[in-house]
Amino acid sequence: MSAGGRTTAYLGPEGTFTETAARTVTAGDKSAQLIACRDIPQVFRQVADGSADQGVIPIENTLEGSVTATLDALAAHTDLRITAELELAVQLVAAAPTGTTLDAVKAVYSHPVPLAGCSQWLSRLATDVERVSVSSTARAAEQVAAHGIGHVAIVNRLAAERYGLTVLADAITDRETNATRFVVVGTELAAPTGWDKTSVVVYIDTNRPGALLNLLEVFAERDLNLTKIESRPTKAELGEYCFFVDVEGHVLDARVGDALAAVRRTQRDITILGSYPRATPFDGVAAEHAKADDAKHRAATTWLDAWRNKATKGPAA
Amino acid sequence: MSAGGRTTAYLGPEGTFTETAARTVTAGDKSAQLIACRDIPQVFRQVADGSADQGVIPIENTLEGSVTATLDALAAHTDLRITAELELAVQLVAAAPTGTTLDAVKAVYSHPVPLAGCSQWLSRLATDVERVSVSSTARAAEQVAAHGIGHVAIVNRLAAERYGLTVLADAITDRETNATRFVVVGTELAAPTGWDKTSVVVYIDTNRPGALLNLLEVFAERDLNLTKIESRPTKAELGEYCFFVDVEGHVLDARVGDALAAVRRTQRDITILGSYPRATPFDGVAAEHAKADDAKHRAATTWLDAWRNKATKGPAA
Amino acid sequence: MSAGGRTTAYLGPEGTFTETAARTVTAGDKSAQLIACRDIPQVFRQVADGSADQGVIPIENTLEGSVTATLDALAAHTDLRITAELELAVQLVAAAPTGTTLDAVKAVYSHPVPLAGCSQWLSRLATDVERVSVSSTARAAEQVAAHGIGHVAIVNRLAAERYGLTVLADAITDRETNATRFVVVGTELAAPTGWDKTSVVVYIDTNRPGALLNLLEVFAERDLNLTKIESRPTKAELGEYCFFVDVEGHVLDARVGDALAAVRRTQRDITILGSYPRATPFDGVAAEHAKADDAKHRAATTWLDAWRNKATKGPAA
Amino acid sequence: MSAGGRTTAYLGPEGTFTETAARTVTAGDKSAQLIACRDIPQVFRQVADGSADQGVIPIENTLEGSVTATLDALAAHTDLRITAELELAVQLVAAAPTGTTLDAVKAVYSHPVPLAGCSQWLSRLATDVERVSVSSTARAAEQVAAHGIGHVAIVNRLAAERYGLTVLADAITDRETNATRFVVVGTELAAPTGWDKTSVVVYIDTNRPGALLNLLEVFAERDLNLTKIESRPTKAELGEYCFFVDVEGHVLDARVGDALAAVRRTQRDITILGSYPRATPFDGVAAEHAKADDAKHRAATTWLDAWRNKATKGPAA
Repeated sequence: MSAGGRTTAYLGPEGTFTETAARTVTAGDKSAQLIACRDIPQVFRQVADGSADQGVIPIENTLEGSVTATLDALAAHTDLRITAELELAVQLVAAAPTGTTLDAVKAVYSHPVPLAGCSQWLSRLATDVERVSVSSTARAAEQVAAHGIGHVAIVNRLAAERYGLTVLADAITDRETNATRFVVVGTELAAPTGWDKTSVVVYIDTNRPGALLNLLEVFAERDLNLTKIESRPTKAELGEYCFFVDVEGHVLDARVGDALAAVRRTQRDITILGSYPRATPFDGVAAEHAKADDAKHRAATTWLDAWRNKATKGPAA
Repeated sequence: MSAGGRTTAYLGPEGTFTETAARTVTAGDKSAQLIACRDIPQVFRQVADGSADQGVIPIENTLEGSVTATLDALAAHTDLRITAELELAVQLVAAAPTGTTLDAVKAVYSHPVPLAGCSQWLSRLATDVERVSVSSTARAAEQVAAHGIGHVAIVNRLAAERYGLTVLADAITDRETNATRFVVVGTELAAPTGWDKTSVVVYIDTNRPGALLNLLEVFAERDLNLTKIESRPTKAELGEYCFFVDVEGHVLDARVGDALAAVRRTQRDITILGSYPRATPFDGVAAEHAKADDAKHRAATTWLDAWRNKATKGPAA
Repeated sequence: MSAGGRTTAYLGPEGTFTETAARTVTAGDKSAQLIACRDIPQVFRQVADGSADQGVIPIENTLEGSVTATLDALAAHTDLRITAELELAVQLVAAAPTGTTLDAVKAVYSHPVPLAGCSQWLSRLATDVERVSVSSTARAAEQVAAHGIGHVAIVNRLAAERYGLTVLADAITDRETNATRFVVVGTELAAPTGWDKTSVVVYIDTNRPGALLNLLEVFAERDLNLTKIESRPTKAELGEYCFFVDVEGHVLDARVGDALAAVRRTQRDITILGSYPRATPFDGVAAEHAKADDAKHRAATTWLDAWRNKATKGPAA
Repeated sequence: MSAGGRTTAYLGPEGTFTETAARTVTAGDKSAQLIACRDIPQVFRQVADGSADQGVIPIENTLEGSVTATLDALAAHTDLRITAELELAVQLVAAAPTGTTLDAVKAVYSHPVPLAGCSQWLSRLATDVERVSVSSTARAAEQVAAHGIGHVAIVNRLAAERYGLTVLADAITDRETNATRFVVVGTELAAPTGWDKTSVVVYIDTNRPGALLNLLEVFAERDLNLTKIESRPTKAELGEYCFFVDVEGHVLDARVGDALAAVRRTQRDITILGSYPRATPFDGVAAEHAKADDAKHRAATTWLDAWRNKATKGPAA
């Protein structure tokens, strides 16, 4: 680790949105050092072995859905914790080597999901335009730059600039809303702020009908809202799932802790991925409500302790 | 309180089944003193003011259902606790002053429920036989004794003897199974035996649909079986109910305590009536199962505490 | 059945509140004939054998709770149906033979529940006043009239008048709210009015943990509010319960019918006691809401039928 | 559509596992014609516009999880139906141009998931071996064939042969179990076989806490097991999910249809993707059990109809 500042590993290559996210996370830290990693597992390894202080990786995109490699790495690295999240709006553009015009496009390159998400714009091109799926939008920019005039990449603006492409069309996605959520992973638990969320992975016993129902009931009983629930195969057998669950509140809250202990005893296993401030705007009313619910939760425990204490001592003399 | 032994108040008059129950409870205590009370509230008052060490009252009968006066008194006396329960099989007989024969019966006296529970036997009498409902079977015996030959009481054998009646017919109830459950109330919590039950009264918010559903879910989530659930109007308004719930386990068990705290925070109110040994025969397998569940419950809390403890200390140096 | 008008059997003796209820039910029918029955089973028998067109019996009182004999008779007479309900506020008075004064009372007579419900007023009498429990308030009036000066009955005003007693004190119950709900039983299903309730008895399998939970879920899934749920021993064994459930809506509503069919297939048994107009004031908003929910329910069935119909015919030519 | 036989479109390029699946599906049909499509949407378009009779696409892999493009296409093509499913065990091999040896590997190419799934085998290679992620395993074989000696592809055996590669190592995945599930899409509903499953997409109202819980309760109430439940962002906003659910039984079963109608009225929307024979081995006991449950379901509806019919006609004359 460099003495000059905190080191942040992020999913490369340079020029993708994740670099933008990493720069947002380290904004204000002039001595911050950024390391572009070739894949998501490498980001986690860098943090796990101390080569980096923290890692920044995408976890979910409006169009593509969850980044499964991130979910898998989070589940595997039980020693690391999510310490923060941030959301960035995605601006996709059609970019090409200078000289390319929209009426003379030979092929369009991008990741399959942006290709699907820009179908209306693509339908306006000539019908014989080839569509080429590549493994990332940055790779699309790279290939288009290599292939020359007539080749178009659907990429974010940062990548277009980095590969010297000219933007032919802006805001080309079918829907206006397109955003990516990133998480920061580190080794320490983030302190409660009063507006937090907690991420966990729950391994359910799929042979037991009702196991998922029971999981949801544990949170419902405690009036804890889930902001995300996503199934993911456990890589053992077709039909075996684990669930990535985000619940409002911090693991140090009485209510959240009690719910997690209940999950621990009723499901096959649970891994706590971390508690961290929510990216959604602070809602004072909701925060006060949650605080009151937590106080009520602690009060019930206090009541029980008092009853037991009095009862086992018998009536006063 | 007499120096000569424990004093036990019970629901009189003498000669009812409750006296039999009280004698069963105090069997082996030669210096025990029994006090017959005129009604159920008086039994509770005797224990509450220290005139008696404990009270014995019926709580439920196969034919009659719950004894509502007992439920009401239990709910009112939050300083008293159920310390034991016992079940007695009820033997009803038809008894009358000597000289009465079944073909010359003028009237049959009993409490309305035994009258209904012996309908098959009654249908074999002449059609013009009058049926007189009185407030207890002991009262029926008393009146029959006063009215003389031709008047028959449906009562238990003990009452028949006490009022000098002759038994005309035995085992006259429509169904073979007829039993009464009694509870003992005192001031101290009974110690856990590994085969206990816990009685509570829960006041639910009837304006909230799903409140009762939530109550049941609290116990279901913790795999706690309910051996009884009975609604009872709260005497405030038509349609307002409280629920008398018996749950397996002792209030000092982690699992039971956790469930009661959950009820406390999710429902309008809860009163713990006591934990005491179950009258049903000991089931070793079920007891072991419950013990294991309780250990699992405590283990989950330990796991959470360990996680929090480690996380707030950060990574080891 | 008399040609002169509808015959209504009711729980006697004359002078109890049930007579008032029966007169309310038949108000406007000048040729109506009333028959006082000696007990609740007799009321049901009169209607069942055609001796009466309908019967009026109390089912629930704020102080006493449910009238268990009524619940039992409803469960037994599966050929009869509840066709209406009404609520009457109960006015209890202390009444005695003329000449009695409150400072010279020897004994107070009533049913045990009114005695309990007037405990504050009773506590203001001399401490040596005897309290005598009898089987009904009408019986209390009768006995007090027989025993003479110094004997007081806690009864309703109608009974006091009928037995020539003088009212010594009015509004003597501990709480202001005291009401009795009555039901009318007949042989025909009442037509839907848009503001109905449906009463059923559900027999659950008590050996199956979660059976009651499942019962409540059936109604919750269909957004059907329960206005009453009351357990009652099934008279077979201690701990076996059936549940008397009142649900908003009419059995001919799609939603209610669907819920009852679901109960039928998931529980041990169900008996439909009837659908009838609700005694609570009409709530236009709630009625519209229920109507819309029922339409939504029928629409879902229509959707499924259309999908199946189209799918089994295959694609259009 | 060719007169010479049924036409089957499948996800190309040739040499992937999907071709194997398509050949399995059309085995026995000598005149069957296969069309390799460049992406999953094209397969669906071919079937939708009648160019192909059916399509074969992968839907789920043990390592990679669900094929999101397939899920998205299924949700979009509400006019098409899943008509069959099949599972194939995946055999991954390391293959390279002849002359390559394991101690002189420059780079390993594959789709990111197989790369992750063979991490133990990869860790035995020299540390400076580059890992290159491409968009499919067939593409990896193609590129390795082009780049020549020293370049290795992790692919299935079929692709290795097709690109003239030599297999260097067999059975190289970290876990033994690796399988892919494929579905066949067509335009007609498959007939019930007694061992079917039904696939649906449910759009839940994420602003309503408990919506997912309610969804699961609908199936639990009807004792219908879910063999799969998987969330997928709806592409509108972060945090909006739809759920792909597989439930045992056929849409023409009374029980399944009733559950789907219940989902329709309680959730935002539902799309039925089809009913088709289950790939898992036939279980006679489970099938009989399901058949009995369906009969019970129909019996409950019959009971309700009979009750209503009798009740609205009134008592018999």
